[in-house]
Amino acid sequence: MTTPPRPDIDPNAARDLGFGTRVAGNSLLRLINKDGSFNVVRRGLGAGAALSPYHALISMTWRSFILLVLGVYFAINALFAAMYVACGPGALAGPPIYGVGHPLSDFLRAFFFSIETFGTIGYGHVSPLGLNANVLVTIESVITLFGVALTTGLVFARFSRPTARIAYSHNAIVAPYRDISGFMFRCANARNNQLLDVSVRVLFSRVEVKDGNRTRQFTVLPLEFERVTFFTLSWTVVHPITPDSPLFGMSFDDLVQMDAEFLVLLSGTDETFAQTVHSQTSYKHDEIIWGAKFKPIFVEAPKTGTIGMDLSRIHELEAAELPPMKTVS
Amino acid sequence: MTTPPRPDIDPNAARDLGFGTRVAGNSLLRLINKDGSFNVVRRGLGAGAALSPYHALISMTWRSFILLVLGVYFAINALFAAMYVACGPGALAGPPIYGVGHPLSDFLRAFFFSIETFGTIGYGHVSPLGLNANVLVTIESVITLFGVALTTGLVFARFSRPTARIAYSHNAIVAPYRDISGFMFRCANARNNQLLDVSVRVLFSRVEVKDGNRTRQFTVLPLEFERVTFFTLSWTVVHPITPDSPLFGMSFDDLVQMDAEFLVLLSGTDETFAQTVHSQTSYKHDEIIWGAKFKPIFVEAPKTGTIGMDLSRIHELEAAELPPMKTVS
Amino acid sequence: MTTPPRPDIDPNAARDLGFGTRVAGNSLLRLINKDGSFNVVRRGLGAGAALSPYHALISMTWRSFILLVLGVYFAINALFAAMYVACGPGALAGPPIYGVGHPLSDFLRAFFFSIETFGTIGYGHVSPLGLNANVLVTIESVITLFGVALTTGLVFARFSRPTARIAYSHNAIVAPYRDISGFMFRCANARNNQLLDVSVRVLFSRVEVKDGNRTRQFTVLPLEFERVTFFTLSWTVVHPITPDSPLFGMSFDDLVQMDAEFLVLLSGTDETFAQTVHSQTSYKHDEIIWGAKFKPIFVEAPKTGTIGMDLSRIHELEAAELPPMKTVS
Amino acid sequence: MTTPPRPDIDPNAARDLGFGTRVAGNSLLRLINKDGSFNVVRRGLGAGAALSPYHALISMTWRSFILLVLGVYFAINALFAAMYVACGPGALAGPPIYGVGHPLSDFLRAFFFSIETFGTIGYGHVSPLGLNANVLVTIESVITLFGVALTTGLVFARFSRPTARIAYSHNAIVAPYRDISGFMFRCANARNNQLLDVSVRVLFSRVEVKDGNRTRQFTVLPLEFERVTFFTLSWTVVHPITPDSPLFGMSFDDLVQMDAEFLVLLSGTDETFAQTVHSQTSYKHDEIIWGAKFKPIFVEAPKTGTIGMDLSRIHELEAAELPPMKTVS
Repeated sequence: MTTPPRPDIDPNAARDLGFGTRVAGNSLLRLINKDGSFNVVRRGLGAGAALSPYHALISMTWRSFILLVLGVYFAINALFAAMYVACGPGALAGPPIYGVGHPLSDFLRAFFFSIETFGTIGYGHVSPLGLNANVLVTIESVITLFGVALTTGLVFARFSRPTARIAYSHNAIVAPYRDISGFMFRCANARNNQLLDVSVRVLFSRVEVKDGNRTRQFTVLPLEFERVTFFTLSWTVVHPITPDSPLFGMSFDDLVQMDAEFLVLLSGTDETFAQTVHSQTSYKHDEIIWGAKFKPIFVEAPKTGTIGMDLSRIHELEAAELPPMKTVS
Repeated sequence: MTTPPRPDIDPNAARDLGFGTRVAGNSLLRLINKDGSFNVVRRGLGAGAALSPYHALISMTWRSFILLVLGVYFAINALFAAMYVACGPGALAGPPIYGVGHPLSDFLRAFFFSIETFGTIGYGHVSPLGLNANVLVTIESVITLFGVALTTGLVFARFSRPTARIAYSHNAIVAPYRDISGFMFRCANARNNQLLDVSVRVLFSRVEVKDGNRTRQFTVLPLEFERVTFFTLSWTVVHPITPDSPLFGMSFDDLVQMDAEFLVLLSGTDETFAQTVHSQTSYKHDEIIWGAKFKPIFVEAPKTGTIGMDLSRIHELEAAELPPMKTVS
Repeated sequence: MTTPPRPDIDPNAARDLGFGTRVAGNSLLRLINKDGSFNVVRRGLGAGAALSPYHALISMTWRSFILLVLGVYFAINALFAAMYVACGPGALAGPPIYGVGHPLSDFLRAFFFSIETFGTIGYGHVSPLGLNANVLVTIESVITLFGVALTTGLVFARFSRPTARIAYSHNAIVAPYRDISGFMFRCANARNNQLLDVSVRVLFSRVEVKDGNRTRQFTVLPLEFERVTFFTLSWTVVHPITPDSPLFGMSFDDLVQMDAEFLVLLSGTDETFAQTVHSQTSYKHDEIIWGAKFKPIFVEAPKTGTIGMDLSRIHELEAAELPPMKTVS
Repeated sequence: MTTPPRPDIDPNAARDLGFGTRVAGNSLLRLINKDGSFNVVRRGLGAGAALSPYHALISMTWRSFILLVLGVYFAINALFAAMYVACGPGALAGPPIYGVGHPLSDFLRAFFFSIETFGTIGYGHVSPLGLNANVLVTIESVITLFGVALTTGLVFARFSRPTARIAYSHNAIVAPYRDISGFMFRCANARNNQLLDVSVRVLFSRVEVKDGNRTRQFTVLPLEFERVTFFTLSWTVVHPITPDSPLFGMSFDDLVQMDAEFLVLLSGTDETFAQTVHSQTSYKHDEIIWGAKFKPIFVEAPKTGTIGMDLSRIHELEAAELPPMKTVS
């Protein structure tokens, strides 16, 4: 009886990844899109179980967020304007907008009065008279308290959400590495801040036929270095294709047949905020070039004593002859 | 003389867990409720030692929180209204609410003036005259500064509190696993956000008789995978019942007699905020089904190139024959 | 030539701890006070190198913080009041505080006008006329913008600062443990929130004579469990006194002569905020009881199905006979 | 066929560090400046790919930040003032600044009215009349909502950004260590707060000639202690120069020829905020003193029962004879 593989014992052990293994092979399928989003549709989450309001308000685009805030802002003020008007002609004292008698004049005065109240400006050239109008002002004042708190928190949270912007080479390559071959891709920080203590995990996903069933397998590929202390220039991530590698002896055609995809998760610490950031991408089999190597990304140092790097060259390749695949002795 | 077991040496070593070991067996007892809360009453914490005010203000329901804020808001304004009235008839200049002579008119004018001040609106149709009223305004203005700061901070902290919503299968099962059996349950992220780098720890708690005393023992169960990189679909957590397992050779009746409970702690990183989130649950012996397996949770992909999952099927089981329990050779 | 000890190879290796090793033995000395603060005076930090303003504003007591904010608030308003008065008699239009001619009337009107401006109330019964007064209002308005931002941020940061409140037993004990002795102390969460994934490190500090010099040595003591998943009840931290232990064969008198101190660092995750919290304490030789054990802390469960703990009993001991110290065979 | 070195197997393995290896040796070059910034110029990041606005607003100096806020503040108000003026003479009612007829009077009245509106003061001695002016007020009120949210968030984020201020000795030294030599430097926390769980990584960077190419190599140096629990006083970080060390048998001249640089990354937890902080520095070959040792940094304890340290002595050295370099037996 054998003990099942444990991740800390066998680093090549397949991992489930939350993608499940019963996924039929489908050469159109890609688990992770190039932008890092997941190609997954989840159903049956239930009504309240989906995105929390906070997640939604944080994740929507700035355009949607600003439109939403504006919409709520105007809806609240229009509602209160209607209620001030409903309090009767004597509830608000002050000059009309269009002159007495204009059909919109009362509503607009009430609307702008509400804006002044909700925005805590309170010029006072229009003022609330009597109990009803004052009660409305009180309610509006409380709503402002919560509304400003929420808006301040949300604008700040959206702005300060920790994100990384990592540039990945368009292609992964199989390139000469020492006296064998290696599976490689190149990445760099596309922002001017510093990332520290950056680690990368690469998962090799492919469809295998087992007992007549096509099942998707996941394997963590051992890397030359899984972690770098600084991430100032570019990092060429290398999986050496040793005899232990699941890629050993494979050709490009094998990868196509297996519907191979290489999933990449990069994590690091943003020095500016000391926060952990993540980035993911994937390489599908048709994005892998066999027999190439990366061109240098370093350029003439712009001034003495500095190192120069041109990030726009991160994708540049040149042909390279692979060493003959050795067999296991 | 033997060295005592160290957790990093013997992963099966019992852990105290902060639950203590002197707990008498009690088949009604459950250490962790299904919703993740703990079945523990702590006494003798002392007056100031219990929940900090911040914890309390963050943990209460939104309903309680809003009622509390409203209550404090109106109490402060009523108090100040009384003080403005106490300053005498000339302290506030401006139109009365109900007309001169109404018994509530002075108080209400002062109350709404306080609202305008506390809310920093300040229309000015009522204004403070003389030293006393102005000093009150000054005090109210300082209280506003702290009050707005606190409310803004609390509303935001309540909203942004990192939480996970994990769906767990109703039952844990003992199912066929490779050529042996395994203790399994299924979990998935019930929100639309992404969780990364998710790890699970399962603790097997049961009452054992030792030197005539019934003591509660805790053992960390080794898992097929203790960590997954992505948590996009469902994850079936498996403890293989090898000869080393404390479950090896046990039957359902043994679990009942031992008052067994399986405690689950799941941790992961919320991709949206790059924050660590936690979730816990437990399986009591009567929630474990012997000889079953989980039905697939995957559904027809709604469109080509995506994977479909129906979370409402996470609990679905079908019967499965267990392999005969092997004996240690 | 031997390789120097590495922490991950020899867990008993002495660590410098940032306390240095050249500290003369001094039986009055205690490195960490019972409340977790450090008994260290640092000089020569330079002017700007000491506490950052933010650290100071966060670490001061609430009393000091509120007094500071009030002081700054009144100072700013008094300064602006003086400047408004300096603009001449026509700069502010509106009713005086004490009537025309009173020596303080102009200053007080200006002061309360400044309060209305700084607090963004702006009743308008006093209003700025002419360029100078309006420029002052503009400046005050900008200061308010920064001031409110700072106060809001600081009040919130002070409130939400992650802290743990851990109760430690008054005494550490040397108690029977399995068939040997163990160095033990007991700790529990003194708040009603949950701490997860709690780990403890214990350092044994003592003065040793080496080459005629008395130097302070630090050793990390291996523990029965260095980490618990849940910290719901109490945790008795145990260092088993095996032949490998630096405590092996020692008596109480040895500890006194060595000026022993046991430093404790506890870390865990606060479930409410998913934040890491820390707590430290220490046990000096005169706080260690030889031949005792902790009384149970569990009480009758207040209702069926729950566990009861009485934290006030965390310090309670009873006598216990230690097994005879075995010699290394 | 050999398996490539894995970091967890061979701690001396060279790491790419994101600095690349194709960098030509250049004795003027320094990868990390003494203040911890990197000597790297990155090009080709693309327009939107450089610093995110948030990073920029957080990283700029306070002087630049305040000037930027003031500039935006005045620009917005000047723009709105021009728009109010464009609404015609009847749009704003209230006393002029310089008297009727002065060319700037209308603009200034509109400007100060805008300040009152944007700052939510709203005295009301100037008030908006008609639709156009009220619409402008509404827009300004919405901008205020976002502006205050942003400013509050940014001021707070700038203030609370987790940073460490670590003092490093000016020189690294090669000093006697036990019966061999060690590469050492000294560091201490230059703030009055506490740092916990501090770890240090030291990378030895040098140019080596391989296959006729000069390539830069990076090696992680094993340290006496890589982590200390407390960082209360000073910490002398030591790399013992054992026969396994890449420094074994090297002289000062070798370091110069190799253009050696020692990169230091220190990480720890700020106790006040329970946040991780980082600090980096480097030692170039001309900052390394051979045959020296650090003078004690401890001073007479200012009062009984405390430890005294004088941080200004952190750089002080005295001569020390190195033991003869042993050869590998």
